Amino acid sequence: MSKLRLKISMSLDGYVAGPNQSVKAPLGEGGGRHLAWALRLEVFRKQLGLSGGESDESTAVVEASNANIGATIMGRNMFGGQPGPWSAAEPWNGWWGKNPPYHHPVFVLTNHARPPLEMEGGTTFHFVTDGIESALERARHAAGGKDVTLAGGAKAARQYFASGLVDEMELNISPTLLGAGERLFEDVGDDMHGLKLVSTVATTHVVHLRFVR
Amino acid sequence: MSKLRLKISMSLDGYVAGPNQSVKAPLGEGGGRHLAWALRLEVFRKQLGLSGGESDESTAVVEASNANIGATIMGRNMFGGQPGPWSAAEPWNGWWGKNPPYHHPVFVLTNHARPPLEMEGGTTFHFVTDGIESALERARHAAGGKDVTLAGGAKAARQYFASGLVDEMELNISPTLLGAGERLFEDVGDDMHGLKLVSTVATTHVVHLRFVR
Repeated sequence: MSKLRLKISMSLDGYVAGPNQSVKAPLGEGGGRHLAWALRLEVFRKQLGLSGGESDESTAVVEASNANIGATIMGRNMFGGQPGPWSAAEPWNGWWGKNPPYHHPVFVLTNHARPPLEMEGGTTFHFVTDGIESALERARHAAGGKDVTLAGGAKAARQYFASGLVDEMELNISPTLLGAGERLFEDVGDDMHGLKLVSTVATTHVVHLRFVR
Repeated sequence: MSKLRLKISMSLDGYVAGPNQSVKAPLGEGGGRHLAWALRLEVFRKQLGLSGGESDESTAVVEASNANIGATIMGRNMFGGQPGPWSAAEPWNGWWGKNPPYHHPVFVLTNHARPPLEMEGGTTFHFVTDGIESALERARHAAGGKDVTLAGGAKAARQYFASGLVDEMELNISPTLLGAGERLFEDVGDDMHGLKLVSTVATTHVVHLRFVR
Protein backbone atom coordinates (compact mmCIF):
# COMPACT_ATOMS: atom_id res chain seq x y z
CA MET A 1 0.00 0.00 0.00
CA SER A 2 1.22 3.46 -0.91
CA LYS A 3 2.29 5.32 2.25
CA LEU A 4 2.02 9.00 3.09
CA ARG A 5 5.45 10.01 4.38
CA LEU A 6 5.78 13.34 6.17
CA LYS A 7 9.32 14.69 5.79
CA ILE A 8 10.15 17.83 7.65
CA SER A 9 12.98 19.64 9.41
CA MET A 10 12.39 21.20 12.78
CA SER A 11 14.49 23.37 15.08
CA LEU A 12 15.14 22.37 18.67
CA ASP A 13 12.35 24.75 19.71
CA GLY A 14 9.91 23.04 17.36
CA TYR A 15 9.74 25.46 14.45
CA VAL A 16 9.58 24.33 10.83
CA ALA A 17 9.66 27.91 9.50
CA GLY A 18 10.77 31.22 10.95
CA PRO A 19 8.54 34.25 11.53
CA ASN A 20 7.21 36.60 8.82
CA GLN A 21 7.33 34.33 5.79
CA SER A 22 7.36 36.27 2.50
CA VAL A 23 8.43 35.99 -1.13
CA LYS A 24 11.82 37.39 -0.12
CA ALA A 25 12.10 35.08 2.90
CA PRO A 26 10.12 31.96 2.01
CA LEU A 27 11.20 30.16 5.18
CA GLY A 28 10.68 33.23 7.35
CA GLU A 29 13.31 35.44 8.91
CA GLY A 30 16.27 33.33 9.94
CA GLY A 31 14.16 30.37 8.91
CA GLY A 32 16.77 28.68 6.79
CA ARG A 33 18.95 27.83 9.76
CA HIS A 34 17.13 24.61 10.55
CA LEU A 35 17.82 23.43 6.96
CA ALA A 36 21.56 24.06 7.04
CA TRP A 37 22.14 20.35 7.72
CA ALA A 38 20.72 19.52 4.26
CA LEU A 39 22.36 22.32 2.30
CA ARG A 40 25.81 21.10 3.33
CA LEU A 41 25.17 17.65 1.84
CA GLU A 42 26.19 16.78 -1.70
CA VAL A 43 23.18 14.47 -2.13
CA PHE A 44 20.79 17.30 -1.30
CA ARG A 45 22.64 20.00 -3.26
CA LYS A 46 22.56 17.85 -6.40
CA GLN A 47 18.74 17.79 -6.23
CA LEU A 48 18.75 21.57 -6.34
CA GLY A 49 21.34 21.68 -9.12
CA LEU A 50 24.04 22.97 -6.78
CA SER A 51 27.63 21.76 -6.84
CA GLY A 52 29.85 20.82 -3.90
CA GLY A 53 28.82 19.49 -0.54
CA GLU A 54 29.83 16.74 1.81
CA SER A 55 28.85 13.17 2.54
CA ASP A 56 28.27 11.65 5.97
CA GLU A 57 25.74 9.43 7.78
CA SER A 58 22.95 11.73 6.61
CA THR A 59 23.60 10.85 2.97
CA ALA A 60 22.04 7.41 3.24
CA VAL A 61 19.11 8.88 5.17
CA VAL A 62 18.39 11.36 2.36
CA GLU A 63 18.75 8.64 -0.27
CA ALA A 64 16.32 6.37 1.58
CA SER A 65 13.95 9.29 1.99
CA ASN A 66 13.95 9.94 -1.77
CA ALA A 67 13.48 6.29 -2.73
CA ASN A 68 10.13 4.89 -3.92
CA ILE A 69 8.34 8.24 -4.11
CA GLY A 70 5.78 8.77 -6.89
CA ALA A 71 4.07 12.02 -5.89
CA THR A 72 4.35 14.94 -3.47
CA ILE A 73 1.78 16.95 -1.51
CA MET A 74 2.51 20.45 -0.23
CA GLY A 75 0.60 23.41 1.17
CA ARG A 76 -0.03 26.61 -0.75
CA ASN A 77 2.37 28.49 1.49
CA MET A 78 5.19 26.12 0.59
CA PHE A 79 4.41 26.45 -3.11
CA GLY A 80 4.47 30.19 -2.50
CA GLY A 81 3.22 33.23 -4.36
CA GLN A 82 1.50 34.79 -1.32
CA PRO A 83 -2.01 33.89 -0.15
CA GLY A 84 -5.18 34.69 -2.07
CA PRO A 85 -6.23 34.28 -5.72
CA TRP A 86 -3.58 33.54 -8.32
CA SER A 87 -2.39 36.53 -10.33
CA ALA A 88 -2.90 36.18 -14.10
CA ALA A 89 -0.57 39.12 -14.74
CA GLU A 90 2.35 37.71 -12.75
CA PRO A 91 1.88 33.95 -12.67
CA TRP A 92 3.64 32.30 -9.73
CA ASN A 93 5.20 29.01 -10.78
CA GLY A 94 6.89 28.00 -7.52
CA TRP A 95 10.32 28.69 -6.01
CA TRP A 96 12.23 26.13 -7.99
CA GLY A 97 12.71 27.54 -11.51
CA LYS A 98 11.84 25.78 -14.77
CA ASN A 99 12.94 22.33 -13.64
CA PRO A 100 11.78 21.73 -10.05
CA PRO A 101 13.52 18.98 -8.06
CA TYR A 102 10.41 16.75 -7.83
CA HIS A 103 10.20 15.08 -11.28
CA HIS A 104 6.75 13.69 -10.49
CA PRO A 105 3.22 15.05 -9.89
CA VAL A 106 2.96 17.56 -7.04
CA PHE A 107 -0.40 18.31 -5.41
CA VAL A 108 -0.72 21.82 -3.94
CA LEU A 109 -3.43 22.40 -1.30
CA THR A 110 -5.14 25.72 -2.02
CA ASN A 111 -8.48 27.49 -1.80
CA HIS A 112 -8.01 28.93 -5.29
CA ALA A 113 -8.53 26.78 -8.38
CA ARG A 114 -5.94 26.85 -11.14
CA PRO A 115 -5.20 24.62 -14.16
CA PRO A 116 -2.35 22.13 -13.83
CA LEU A 117 1.09 23.64 -14.36
CA GLU A 118 3.49 21.44 -16.30
CA MET A 119 7.18 22.18 -15.72
CA GLU A 120 10.33 20.66 -17.21
CA GLY A 121 11.77 17.41 -15.91
CA GLY A 122 8.51 15.62 -15.16
CA THR A 123 7.12 17.89 -12.45
CA THR A 124 3.47 18.92 -12.87
CA PHE A 125 1.79 20.99 -10.18
CA HIS A 126 -1.88 20.14 -9.59
CA PHE A 127 -3.94 22.56 -7.52
CA VAL A 128 -6.39 20.85 -5.19
CA THR A 129 -9.25 22.87 -3.73
CA ASP A 130 -11.37 20.16 -2.14
CA GLY A 131 -9.32 19.27 0.90
CA ILE A 132 -6.52 17.12 2.23
CA GLU A 133 -8.23 13.76 1.76
CA SER A 134 -8.93 14.47 -1.88
CA ALA A 135 -5.33 15.59 -2.41
CA LEU A 136 -4.09 12.38 -0.79
CA GLU A 137 -6.37 10.23 -2.92
CA ARG A 138 -5.22 11.94 -6.12
CA ALA A 139 -1.56 11.79 -5.08
CA ARG A 140 -1.79 8.09 -4.26
CA HIS A 141 -3.39 7.42 -7.62
CA ALA A 142 -0.71 9.44 -9.41
CA ALA A 143 2.07 7.69 -7.48
CA GLY A 144 1.12 4.40 -9.13
CA GLY A 145 1.87 2.19 -6.15
CA LYS A 146 4.83 4.20 -4.89
CA ASP A 147 4.73 6.33 -1.74
CA VAL A 148 3.64 9.94 -1.41
CA THR A 149 5.81 12.63 0.19
CA LEU A 150 4.14 15.20 2.44
CA ALA A 151 6.64 18.04 2.15
CA GLY A 152 5.02 20.68 4.39
CA GLY A 153 4.69 23.46 5.26
CA ALA A 154 3.63 23.62 8.86
CA LYS A 155 -0.11 23.93 8.30
CA ALA A 156 -0.35 21.10 5.75
CA ALA A 157 1.79 18.86 7.96
CA ARG A 158 -0.37 19.61 11.02
CA GLN A 159 -3.60 18.93 9.13
CA TYR A 160 -2.51 15.51 7.86
CA PHE A 161 -0.87 14.58 11.17
CA ALA A 162 -3.89 15.51 13.29
CA SER A 163 -6.19 13.63 10.91
CA GLY A 164 -4.18 10.46 11.44
CA LEU A 165 -3.36 10.22 7.75
CA VAL A 166 0.44 10.19 8.11
CA ASP A 167 1.86 6.66 7.75
CA GLU A 168 5.51 7.55 8.28
CA MET A 169 7.20 10.61 9.71
CA GLU A 170 10.78 11.52 8.92
CA LEU A 171 11.60 14.25 11.40
CA ASN A 172 14.97 15.99 11.08
CA ILE A 173 15.79 17.90 14.25
CA SER A 174 18.34 20.68 13.82
CA PRO A 175 20.29 21.62 16.97
CA THR A 176 19.40 25.27 16.55
CA LEU A 177 16.77 27.68 17.81
CA LEU A 178 14.58 29.85 15.59
CA GLY A 179 12.90 31.59 18.52
CA ALA A 180 9.64 32.22 16.65
CA GLY A 181 7.67 31.14 13.60
CA GLU A 182 5.52 28.17 12.72
CA ARG A 183 5.62 25.15 15.01
CA LEU A 184 4.95 21.67 13.68
CA PHE A 185 3.37 20.35 16.87
CA GLU A 186 0.92 23.12 17.76
CA ASP A 187 -2.77 22.49 18.31
CA VAL A 188 -2.41 18.88 17.20
CA GLY A 189 -3.20 17.38 20.61
CA ASP A 190 -1.21 14.63 22.30
CA ASP A 191 -2.08 11.71 20.02
CA MET A 192 0.79 10.22 18.03
CA HIS A 193 -1.78 8.31 15.92
CA GLY A 194 0.17 5.11 16.30
CA LEU A 195 3.43 6.55 15.01
CA LYS A 196 6.36 4.97 16.83
CA LEU A 197 10.03 5.85 16.73
CA VAL A 198 11.80 3.02 14.94
CA SER A 199 15.20 4.38 13.96
CA THR A 200 17.55 7.24 14.60
CA VAL A 201 20.61 8.53 12.78
CA ALA A 202 22.48 11.45 14.24
CA THR A 203 25.46 13.64 13.47
CA THR A 204 26.46 16.89 15.17
CA HIS A 205 24.47 18.70 12.42
CA VAL A 206 21.11 16.93 12.60
CA VAL A 207 19.16 14.17 14.32
CA HIS A 208 17.03 12.08 11.95
CA LEU A 209 14.07 10.39 13.62
CA ARG A 210 11.95 7.93 11.67
CA PHE A 211 8.48 7.04 12.91
CA VAL A 212 6.24 4.36 11.41
CA ARG A 213 3.03 2.70 12.45
CA MET B 1 36.03 24.64 36.56
CA SER B 2 32.73 23.41 37.94
CA LYS B 3 30.12 23.26 35.16
CA LEU B 4 26.41 23.96 35.30
CA ARG B 5 24.74 21.02 33.56
CA LEU B 6 21.10 21.33 32.58
CA LYS B 7 19.45 17.91 32.48
CA ILE B 8 15.91 17.75 31.29
CA SER B 9 13.44 15.55 29.44
CA MET B 10 11.27 17.04 26.73
CA SER B 11 8.42 15.69 24.63
CA LEU B 12 8.54 15.87 20.85
CA ASP B 13 6.34 18.96 21.04
CA GLY B 14 8.79 20.66 23.40
CA TYR B 15 7.10 20.28 26.76
CA VAL B 16 8.99 19.49 29.96
CA ALA B 17 5.81 19.32 32.05
CA GLY B 18 2.17 18.81 31.22
CA PRO B 19 -0.65 21.30 31.90
CA ASN B 20 -2.19 22.07 35.29
CA GLN B 21 0.66 21.07 37.59
CA SER B 22 -0.51 20.37 41.14
CA VAL B 23 0.42 18.44 44.27
CA LYS B 24 -1.56 15.51 42.91
CA ALA B 25 -0.03 15.80 39.42
CA PRO B 26 3.45 17.30 39.99
CA LEU B 27 4.38 16.91 36.33
CA GLY B 28 1.01 18.15 35.11
CA GLU B 29 -1.78 16.11 33.58
CA GLY B 30 -0.30 13.34 31.47
CA GLY B 31 3.03 14.97 32.19
CA GLY B 32 4.82 11.84 33.24
CA ARG B 33 4.74 10.36 29.76
CA HIS B 34 7.92 12.12 28.64
CA LEU B 35 9.74 10.52 31.59
CA ALA B 36 8.66 6.96 30.85
CA TRP B 37 12.04 6.32 29.20
CA ALA B 38 13.76 6.82 32.57
CA LEU B 39 11.29 4.93 34.74
CA ARG B 40 11.83 1.75 32.72
CA LEU B 41 15.58 1.81 33.45
CA GLU B 42 17.07 -0.10 36.36
CA VAL B 43 19.76 2.57 36.88
CA PHE B 44 17.12 5.26 37.29
CA ARG B 45 14.71 3.17 39.38
CA LYS B 46 17.49 2.35 41.86
CA GLN B 47 17.95 6.06 42.54
CA LEU B 48 14.30 6.28 43.53
CA GLY B 49 14.49 3.10 45.63
CA LEU B 50 12.43 1.13 43.10
CA SER B 51 13.19 -2.43 42.08
CA GLY B 52 13.22 -3.92 38.60
CA GLY B 53 13.88 -2.19 35.34
CA GLU B 54 15.92 -2.78 32.24
CA SER B 55 19.34 -1.88 30.90
CA ASP B 56 20.14 -0.58 27.44
CA GLU B 57 22.19 2.15 25.75
CA SER B 58 20.53 4.72 28.01
CA THR B 59 22.10 3.16 31.11
CA ALA B 60 25.57 4.53 30.37
CA VAL B 61 24.07 7.92 29.54
CA VAL B 62 22.36 8.09 32.94
CA GLU B 63 25.52 6.93 34.72
CA ALA B 64 27.60 9.59 32.96
CA SER B 65 24.96 12.17 33.79
CA ASN B 66 25.15 11.30 37.49
CA ALA B 67 28.94 11.29 37.64
CA ASN B 68 30.96 14.15 39.17
CA ILE B 69 27.95 16.05 40.55
CA GLY B 70 28.34 17.89 43.86
CA ALA B 71 25.17 19.98 44.05
CA THR B 72 21.78 20.50 42.40
CA ILE B 73 19.72 23.58 41.59
CA MET B 74 15.97 23.40 41.05
CA GLY B 75 13.02 25.77 40.84
CA ARG B 76 10.40 26.12 43.55
CA ASN B 77 7.81 24.46 41.36
CA MET B 78 9.98 21.36 41.01
CA PHE B 79 10.55 21.24 44.77
CA GLY B 80 6.78 21.58 45.07
CA GLY B 81 4.38 22.52 47.82
CA GLN B 82 2.41 24.99 45.70
CA PRO B 83 3.44 28.63 45.14
CA GLY B 84 3.46 31.30 47.84
CA PRO B 85 4.74 31.39 51.43
CA TRP B 86 5.72 28.14 53.13
CA SER B 87 3.12 26.70 55.47
CA ALA B 88 4.31 26.24 59.06
CA ALA B 89 1.34 24.03 59.86
CA GLU B 90 1.93 21.59 56.99
CA PRO B 91 5.62 21.83 56.15
CA TRP B 92 6.38 20.73 52.58
CA ASN B 93 9.62 18.78 52.43
CA GLY B 94 9.69 17.86 48.75
CA TRP B 95 8.30 14.99 46.73
CA TRP B 96 10.99 12.49 47.57
CA GLY B 97 10.31 11.24 51.12
CA LYS B 98 12.82 11.17 53.98
CA ASN B 99 15.81 10.18 51.86
CA PRO B 100 15.75 12.15 48.59
CA PRO B 101 17.78 10.79 45.66
CA TYR B 102 20.26 13.69 45.61
CA HIS B 103 22.65 12.95 48.53
CA HIS B 104 24.23 16.39 48.20
CA PRO B 105 23.19 20.03 48.75
CA VAL B 106 20.17 21.13 46.69
CA PHE B 107 19.49 24.82 46.09
CA VAL B 108 15.82 25.71 45.60
CA LEU B 109 15.00 29.01 43.84
CA THR B 110 12.15 30.70 45.69
CA ASN B 111 10.78 34.09 46.64
CA HIS B 112 10.06 32.87 50.17
CA ALA B 113 12.85 32.49 52.71
CA ARG B 114 13.09 29.31 54.76
CA PRO B 115 15.82 27.73 56.92
CA PRO B 116 17.85 24.90 55.38
CA LEU B 117 16.08 21.54 55.46
CA GLU B 118 18.34 18.61 56.27
CA MET B 119 17.08 15.24 55.07
CA GLU B 120 18.49 11.73 55.42
CA GLY B 121 21.19 10.46 53.11
CA GLY B 122 23.15 13.67 52.68
CA THR B 123 20.53 15.83 50.97
CA THR B 124 20.05 19.30 52.42
CA PHE B 125 17.65 21.71 50.72
CA HIS B 126 18.78 25.35 50.79
CA PHE B 127 16.23 28.00 49.86
CA VAL B 128 17.70 30.83 47.80
CA THR B 129 15.75 34.08 47.54
CA ASP B 130 18.28 36.35 45.87
CA GLY B 131 18.26 35.05 42.31
CA ILE B 132 19.71 32.51 39.94
CA GLU B 133 23.28 33.85 39.96
CA SER B 134 23.45 33.69 43.73
CA ALA B 135 22.07 30.15 43.69
CA LEU B 136 24.68 29.13 41.13
CA GLU B 137 27.49 30.69 43.15
CA ARG B 138 26.37 28.91 46.31
CA ALA B 139 25.86 25.61 44.49
CA ARG B 140 29.32 25.80 42.89
CA HIS B 141 30.87 26.49 46.27
CA ALA B 142 28.97 23.59 47.85
CA ALA B 143 29.94 21.27 44.98
CA GLY B 144 33.61 21.56 45.98
CA GLY B 145 35.01 21.42 42.45
CA LYS B 146 32.45 19.00 41.10
CA ASP B 147 29.72 19.99 38.63
CA VAL B 148 26.27 21.36 39.43
CA THR B 149 23.04 19.81 38.06
CA LEU B 150 20.29 22.14 36.92
CA ALA B 151 17.30 19.83 37.31
CA GLY B 152 14.46 22.11 36.18
CA GLY B 153 11.61 22.83 36.08
CA ALA B 154 10.81 24.74 32.95
CA LYS B 155 11.07 28.23 34.39
CA ALA B 156 14.38 27.67 36.18
CA ALA B 157 15.83 25.99 33.08
CA ARG B 158 14.70 28.86 30.85
CA GLN B 159 16.14 31.49 33.18
CA TYR B 160 19.60 29.91 33.33
CA PHE B 161 19.59 29.07 29.61
CA ALA B 162 18.59 32.56 28.49
CA SER B 163 21.20 34.09 30.80
CA GLY B 164 23.91 32.06 29.11
CA LEU B 165 24.86 30.36 32.37
CA VAL B 166 24.37 26.77 31.17
CA ASP B 167 27.70 25.08 30.36
CA GLU B 168 26.29 21.73 29.27
CA MET B 169 22.81 20.65 28.27
CA GLU B 170 21.68 17.05 28.44
CA LEU B 171 18.40 17.02 26.57
CA ASN B 172 16.38 13.80 26.54
CA ILE B 173 13.75 13.89 23.82
CA SER B 174 10.86 11.50 24.33
CA PRO B 175 9.03 10.41 21.16
CA THR B 176 5.68 11.42 22.63
CA LEU B 177 3.38 14.42 22.60
CA LEU B 178 2.03 16.15 25.69
CA GLY B 179 -0.11 18.58 23.71
CA ALA B 180 0.07 21.34 26.32
CA GLY B 181 2.02 22.42 29.37
CA GLU B 182 5.35 24.12 29.98
CA ARG B 183 7.76 24.38 27.07
CA LEU B 184 11.50 24.49 27.66
CA PHE B 185 12.27 26.70 24.66
CA GLU B 186 9.69 29.46 25.02
CA ASP B 187 10.60 33.13 25.15
CA VAL B 188 14.29 32.29 25.26
CA GLY B 189 15.10 33.76 21.83
CA ASP B 190 17.18 32.08 19.16
CA ASP B 191 20.60 32.19 20.82
CA MET B 192 22.15 28.82 21.71
CA HIS B 193 24.75 30.69 23.82
CA GLY B 194 27.54 28.69 22.26
CA LEU B 195 26.04 25.30 23.12
CA LYS B 196 26.82 22.81 20.36
CA LEU B 197 25.56 19.29 19.86
CA VAL B 198 28.49 16.96 20.50
CA SER B 199 26.98 13.53 21.00
CA THR B 200 23.79 11.59 20.57
CA VAL B 201 22.59 8.27 21.93
CA ALA B 202 19.21 6.99 20.83
CA THR B 203 16.90 4.08 21.46
CA THR B 204 13.28 3.71 20.40
CA HIS B 205 12.35 5.09 23.86
CA VAL B 206 14.43 8.27 24.00
CA VAL B 207 16.95 10.39 22.14
CA HIS B 208 19.73 11.75 24.34
CA LEU B 209 21.36 14.91 23.00
CA ARG B 210 24.43 16.35 24.73
CA PHE B 211 25.42 19.96 24.10
CA VAL B 212 28.59 21.59 25.39
CA ARG B 213 30.37 24.85 24.74
